[in-house]
Amino acid sequence: MILLQYFEPETQNWQQIDFSTLPQQLSADARVWINLNDANADELQQVLQHFAITPTMAEDFSRQRHPPKLETQADYSLLILRGYADADFSEYASSAQVNLLYSHNVLISMIKCHNPHLLQQLTPQLIAGHRNTVADWVKQLTLNVAASYLEKLIAFEDELSELEDNMLHRGNDEQMALMMRYRSVLRKINRNLAYQKDIFADALYEENSPLLQQFGRPVVRDFYEKFERLHSMTDMYYDQLSDLVSGYMSTSSHQINDRMKVLTMISSIFIPLTFVAGIYGMNFEYMPELTWPAAYFSVLALMAGGGVAALFWFKHKGWW
Amino acid sequence: MILLQYFEPETQNWQQIDFSTLPQQLSADARVWINLNDANADELQQVLQHFAITPTMAEDFSRQRHPPKLETQADYSLLILRGYADADFSEYASSAQVNLLYSHNVLISMIKCHNPHLLQQLTPQLIAGHRNTVADWVKQLTLNVAASYLEKLIAFEDELSELEDNMLHRGNDEQMALMMRYRSVLRKINRNLAYQKDIFADALYEENSPLLQQFGRPVVRDFYEKFERLHSMTDMYYDQLSDLVSGYMSTSSHQINDRMKVLTMISSIFIPLTFVAGIYGMNFEYMPELTWPAAYFSVLALMAGGGVAALFWFKHKGWW
Amino acid sequence: MILLQYFEPETQNWQQIDFSTLPQQLSADARVWINLNDANADELQQVLQHFAITPTMAEDFSRQRHPPKLETQADYSLLILRGYADADFSEYASSAQVNLLYSHNVLISMIKCHNPHLLQQLTPQLIAGHRNTVADWVKQLTLNVAASYLEKLIAFEDELSELEDNMLHRGNDEQMALMMRYRSVLRKINRNLAYQKDIFADALYEENSPLLQQFGRPVVRDFYEKFERLHSMTDMYYDQLSDLVSGYMSTSSHQINDRMKVLTMISSIFIPLTFVAGIYGMNFEYMPELTWPAAYFSVLALMAGGGVAALFWFKHKGWW
Amino acid sequence: MILLQYFEPETQNWQQIDFSTLPQQLSADARVWINLNDANADELQQVLQHFAITPTMAEDFSRQRHPPKLETQADYSLLILRGYADADFSEYASSAQVNLLYSHNVLISMIKCHNPHLLQQLTPQLIAGHRNTVADWVKQLTLNVAASYLEKLIAFEDELSELEDNMLHRGNDEQMALMMRYRSVLRKINRNLAYQKDIFADALYEENSPLLQQFGRPVVRDFYEKFERLHSMTDMYYDQLSDLVSGYMSTSSHQINDRMKVLTMISSIFIPLTFVAGIYGMNFEYMPELTWPAAYFSVLALMAGGGVAALFWFKHKGWW
Amino acid sequence: MILLQYFEPETQNWQQIDFSTLPQQLSADARVWINLNDANADELQQVLQHFAITPTMAEDFSRQRHPPKLETQADYSLLILRGYADADFSEYASSAQVNLLYSHNVLISMIKCHNPHLLQQLTPQLIAGHRNTVADWVKQLTLNVAASYLEKLIAFEDELSELEDNMLHRGNDEQMALMMRYRSVLRKINRNLAYQKDIFADALYEENSPLLQQFGRPVVRDFYEKFERLHSMTDMYYDQLSDLVSGYMSTSSHQINDRMKVLTMISSIFIPLTFVAGIYGMNFEYMPELTWPAAYFSVLALMAGGGVAALFWFKHKGWW
Repeated sequence: MILLQYFEPETQNWQQIDFSTLPQQLSADARVWINLNDANADELQQVLQHFAITPTMAEDFSRQRHPPKLETQADYSLLILRGYADADFSEYASSAQVNLLYSHNVLISMIKCHNPHLLQQLTPQLIAGHRNTVADWVKQLTLNVAASYLEKLIAFEDELSELEDNMLHRGNDEQMALMMRYRSVLRKINRNLAYQKDIFADALYEENSPLLQQFGRPVVRDFYEKFERLHSMTDMYYDQLSDLVSGYMSTSSHQINDRMKVLTMISSIFIPLTFVAGIYGMNFEYMPELTWPAAYFSVLALMAGGGVAALFWFKHKGWW
Repeated sequence: MILLQYFEPETQNWQQIDFSTLPQQLSADARVWINLNDANADELQQVLQHFAITPTMAEDFSRQRHPPKLETQADYSLLILRGYADADFSEYASSAQVNLLYSHNVLISMIKCHNPHLLQQLTPQLIAGHRNTVADWVKQLTLNVAASYLEKLIAFEDELSELEDNMLHRGNDEQMALMMRYRSVLRKINRNLAYQKDIFADALYEENSPLLQQFGRPVVRDFYEKFERLHSMTDMYYDQLSDLVSGYMSTSSHQINDRMKVLTMISSIFIPLTFVAGIYGMNFEYMPELTWPAAYFSVLALMAGGGVAALFWFKHKGWW
Repeated sequence: MILLQYFEPETQNWQQIDFSTLPQQLSADARVWINLNDANADELQQVLQHFAITPTMAEDFSRQRHPPKLETQADYSLLILRGYADADFSEYASSAQVNLLYSHNVLISMIKCHNPHLLQQLTPQLIAGHRNTVADWVKQLTLNVAASYLEKLIAFEDELSELEDNMLHRGNDEQMALMMRYRSVLRKINRNLAYQKDIFADALYEENSPLLQQFGRPVVRDFYEKFERLHSMTDMYYDQLSDLVSGYMSTSSHQINDRMKVLTMISSIFIPLTFVAGIYGMNFEYMPELTWPAAYFSVLALMAGGGVAALFWFKHKGWW
Repeated sequence: MILLQYFEPETQNWQQIDFSTLPQQLSADARVWINLNDANADELQQVLQHFAITPTMAEDFSRQRHPPKLETQADYSLLILRGYADADFSEYASSAQVNLLYSHNVLISMIKCHNPHLLQQLTPQLIAGHRNTVADWVKQLTLNVAASYLEKLIAFEDELSELEDNMLHRGNDEQMALMMRYRSVLRKINRNLAYQKDIFADALYEENSPLLQQFGRPVVRDFYEKFERLHSMTDMYYDQLSDLVSGYMSTSSHQINDRMKVLTMISSIFIPLTFVAGIYGMNFEYMPELTWPAAYFSVLALMAGGGVAALFWFKHKGWW
Repeated sequence: MILLQYFEPETQNWQQIDFSTLPQQLSADARVWINLNDANADELQQVLQHFAITPTMAEDFSRQRHPPKLETQADYSLLILRGYADADFSEYASSAQVNLLYSHNVLISMIKCHNPHLLQQLTPQLIAGHRNTVADWVKQLTLNVAASYLEKLIAFEDELSELEDNMLHRGNDEQMALMMRYRSVLRKINRNLAYQKDIFADALYEENSPLLQQFGRPVVRDFYEKFERLHSMTDMYYDQLSDLVSGYMSTSSHQINDRMKVLTMISSIFIPLTFVAGIYGMNFEYMPELTWPAAYFSVLALMAGGGVAALFWFKHKGWW
């Protein structure tokens, strides 16, 4: 289904029209927004051919899974972005895929997002009687994509310090598994953010970048800084999780060492002593020691001596 | 064996001819594809000398194991690519080696691939009555090389999330060994992809790159993006596997710690008590305590006291 | 609350005036410092609009949590810095956020800092009868921001060598937890310092950088070197902590190994022997061995033989 | 001892002459190769002064242990290379040091190599009646240096996959030590290869590089690609060994965990039960339970109950 | 105390004069070396003001702890270097701080070094009747700084291979602690060397670098190569130590695993058997099995059966 919003310059009003009735030549004042979220492959082809999109751009635009990129050919720019559609970083279903094709007065959008609230935010706002510029829409969508990460990242900071407190003192396997999921998700969004950061970084370094012409340097720089900040935050959080994992392991290792010390000392002292007691608990008829009057206390004394000797040996070895 | 397909401009038709009958001077409209997959060393030399290939290019072309590269001298370009020929990433026999030498109307190919299905895809398609350009063939081969990685990488993503679920809860040595094999294979293809990515990245940055002239910037950029994406995917999957290995170890370490705690506490309490019981199980004739009426209950009370004291000591030490 | 200090060129004196009485046109000799530390959102807007700050700069200036950055548009530069406000690196509440907007004769500052001593240092000094230049203030604030890290980092060096001595010999969980907190804090300030270093590095590489024009190359280079040094120190300290964690773990592992060796040898020798003693301690009526005269000494001899054999086996295996 | 081979243009023949009889002025057609492998310090000085080598170049040339480098001053180039002289990567005695000083018709070489076979390969070949160019010799030596690594690296690949199979299933300390030695050697040759790669990479990026003038771009590019490939191979093998070490540790950790589980469960169940049995094995005269008719079976039932309860507790805790 | 050596062009001789008698205008042929090693703050200020050093350079020169840097303003260059003053890498007290301020005929030096032998080497040599150039002194000092690292690094190589042999076979906690100290020291000198390497690398890339004008490109390149080599050596040694730490841990882990296997098998077999023996060692009056004639041998058979079954179970599990 092709949803087409048309801004008629004469009436200064937005109206939803049928794609087939769209005039072939658009006046410079007209605005068109074509929403292909629910379009099938044929409708998609129809629209792309109508605006004479080149094959490589058309192919990339049609994909539902393409990493963020920017490409400009002739009048049209293809901008692919990815927003964060899930509630937090413990579970990652899929990103919000934002495919945009735009010229100065046409915006073709195809947005896939399983989170209806975010989908709503990623939809251009039409204001009756007001001729939005296409650049404004694209700018708004880009900022909303950035915002979809930022809120979750800021919320994650608190979760992270809680994890830090927990892991070292009362860590358990569920928390460990949670951290593993976090790391996995942060890696994925870090990659998406790197692509998006690079789009705007490249634009800033290129003299004649179309983005600079469409939005102006301050806005592109703002885009860059927002995604750079998101990228650096995910980097840092990921690294902090890694530190936590290694710190957790180091602590475990040290505690194992401590417990091992206790276990080894107690076992080394009492297992041989128990063996000696076991010997004199045997029921052989002929065991001469059993009848000696002083035997019991001699054995007790020997046992005590052995135990104390073992303690001194451990002391000498620096075990306590 | 030299397989030679010749497109005669006059008849507009493809025909398989003998290498010795190939005209020394080709008309601009003619096309030649020489398939050296099954050629021996002599035949190889014969063909390379016929087209006056320079020695360094000839040497690299003749190798069956050369990392991906691009070199252009005079009319001929040498493009070496590597596709992924195995079924998945758990076993890596060898890559598909794609050696191409081409001018604007001659393509010499030597492809080694143990997977017949992929070999088929890496073979130029001749269309009767249609004069393919050599650039089209090379483009198609390059895209097919990229595709040979992509399908396996996308399939691998699912395998990876399954591994993630398994490792933390029911990990075993077979899965660990599988992960080690995956890591080893991903490292190898990551290196191949890095070479291939760099070929096209270099071309994009060089003003007069032959690739840009042969294919045009949008196509070269498309090549670059495809290999860059593959490279970044293998990077990410490799890193996720590494995270998994370290997470697995951290979890193991923590579980060892937990078990150690239980073992040490139980051993520390009961081994000494058993020793005490062992003492009074000895059969010495003269053991005065044995005849005291309250001895048994005193010993029991002492044992209980010792056990409780140990528990408190562990509690005090924060073990539970 | 808007605190406004005005330097009247005629009287050559500083006086605190009300914002509403500020002349719309400032003479080149006048100086204005507006302190918005305690301003509310409305007052903030009022000031920013009065000086016609562009929206993106105004938005960044208004944030209480924005990473360090520098932006110049028209006459105004926005400089955001972050100082270290906590007593040491074991606890990190929040950074001192220093937001500065300045032209050649106006400084608008908004500083959030929970440490009153540092806040004092981050406040421009007014000298009666003396016309400070705005650049001097900004320079002083920047140097004070750098100094807020330096003192703590130099103090940390000693703490670190103490930790190094402790961890390997008498490490415990509290110290491990402390090191984890240090690592977490150093990561965070490392990121802040990287942003601040980059601000000045970028300025040095840009011919027409406003910073170079305002402060001169030697001063900007000095800023860069100071933050670069701080950044490299946090990097190094962080890495040394990581080395310490891994060294600690390696030592733990080795000690576990040593204890395991003792435990396994003693258990392997005495547990089977105790079992044998246990057999002959059973009270069955018909146990023929019990009545054999030589049984007791034979069993003792067998036990001794078994123990010695086990010792040789361990020796053979290289356990001691 | 100075070994001097002189190609007399008139006779078109090579002859070994004494250094003192070398004409001060060489005709452009003459060729001289001076072999200083067995020269002492005085002879070395004599030769270097004869050809007026600048002091810094002379100093570097005289060293028997200098990392690979290239320097050109006036007519002479100093090229220092390092080949791999040992049989494989398990033992690293020292590299083959190849110090070359050359102009268009003079080659001074000093090669230290403990492997006679490689030394032979690193010696320029003189062909009677044939005027070799010095550049040909240097090219041949450079290719042979590269080859000295390549054969061992290709052989190492097989060794590595064998190690991979072994380590995870039947790893032992000898193999671990072998891997440590491999890692150490690969690090060292990786550093040598990095220097050699950079020599040729720098030459490719420099317009007026003497190397480009002496050998032509295709040959220098070939040198670069060969050393780059070697460097990337050692990098990869090193990383694969590191993966193997960490995988080995992860597997060990998991197996320890598994064994710990068995040990802890069995100990936790049977050690307390043995203690109970020990109590009723004590020989106190007054132990009222001993005479109760149902005591034995009650205790057995209690023991069974305790054991089953412990099993359920472990089950509940997810231990099996 | 200000030590001033003055070379009078007329007498061609060096003489130690008082700072106050130094002529304000120096002839181009005169040379002055001012040694401020033992100067107090006032004397320092006096000298710096006499030569009109700019404040930022004066401030950096006066510091006793400033990382290596180079700065040139007007006629004077500030060069700060750091040498290695300790005997080896097991203990790091502090670096030798070499602060130099020089013009073409004035050298002001302030050197702090706790090692008198190195301090001696870092002192400019005056030769009677000979007019040293200042550049020669600075060159000599720079080379001596580089040499102060090199000798210790070459000696360290042997120590490292000894450590490699020791750690894997007879590693203990003292060696581990030594390795941790080495790593810590190598990190610190690596940072110092990075700064010093960068000073000369920057000079090589800058067309009008003052260093190039003072020393000529071959000498600066030689400086660069020396420090680059030192830097790459510390990098490599540091990494080899890290490999050693991880290899050590991997070996420990594997040995723990091996010991755990023995302990678990022996405990799992004999602890339950001992329990059974303990049951029949209880002294209950009514234990019907005790009187059965075949009971003893049945129990022995059952025990043997249980032990063998356990062995098979472990065999089946692949434990041996």
